[in-house]
Amino acid sequence: MGTSEESITLHPIGVAHTPYQTPKDAPHQGFAGDEIAEIEVFGEYASGLVDIASVHRVTVVYWAHLADRGTFDGVFTRRSPNRPNPLSICACLVLGLEDRHLQVRGLDAVDGSPILDLKPTLQAER
Amino acid sequence: MGTSEESITLHPIGVAHTPYQTPKDAPHQGFAGDEIAEIEVFGEYASGLVDIASVHRVTVVYWAHLADRGTFDGVFTRRSPNRPNPLSICACLVLGLEDRHLQVRGLDAVDGSPILDLKPTLQAER
Repeated sequence: MGTSEESITLHPIGVAHTPYQTPKDAPHQGFAGDEIAEIEVFGEYASGLVDIASVHRVTVVYWAHLADRGTFDGVFTRRSPNRPNPLSICACLVLGLEDRHLQVRGLDAVDGSPILDLKPTLQAER
Repeated sequence: MGTSEESITLHPIGVAHTPYQTPKDAPHQGFAGDEIAEIEVFGEYASGLVDIASVHRVTVVYWAHLADRGTFDGVFTRRSPNRPNPLSICACLVLGLEDRHLQVRGLDAVDGSPILDLKPTLQAER
C-alpha cells in the first residue's frame, strides 16, 4: 500500500465559537439546533472567504478535539465523534460575514473546535 | 487561540481502489459516476466495519493526495480538491463487504486515495 498508510498533517484554517461548552451540550448530528455560531478564519486563510456570503449553505469540516480516538468497534456505522480520525461534517446556513468572522446557524461543534475546511453544500447534502 | 492553531495528525484507515487514475479522470463532485469502487480498510481498523453492510449509504471522507494545498483565493466557495486541507466528502451507495473490502458505488476519489473516515450518511446528505 506504500504511501497510503503514511500520516497526514492538517493545519486548522480557523476556530469555532459556539454556545456548546462540552460534547454533552452539543446537539447530536442530524438534529442540529438553531443556535447561531461564529467561525473565525485565521488571517492566513482569509482570502478563501471571497464571495462566501453568496453561498446559502456551507459544509463545515471540523476536528472534534475532545473525542476519544481509541474507539474502534463498529465505529464506521455510527456518527459519534469518538472515532480514529474525529473529522466532523456539518451543513450550516450562512448568515453573514464580518471581516474574517463567518456567522452560521446549525453548527453542532463544541466551542473551540478547530475548523479544517469550508465548502459550499451540495444539493444532495442539504 | 492557543491550541486551535496546532497541527493535527491523521492516520489513514484504508485506501481507495477506483477506476480513476488522475484527478482529470475522476467525476466532479455532485456529478458522481456509476462506477464501482472498493475501499480496503486496514486490518487495525477492520472491527469498525461491524454491521456496515446494514448501512444503505456511507459518507466517505478521503484525502485528495494529488491536490495543490497552496490554493487559497476564494477556495471556501468552491468544491475543488485544491485547498489548504484537501479533505473530500462523498456519499456512496454500499454494495457489500468481503472481509476488509467494502464495495461502493459513486466514489469520486482517484485510485490510491487515503481513506480517513466512513460514516452512515444522514438523510440530509443524500
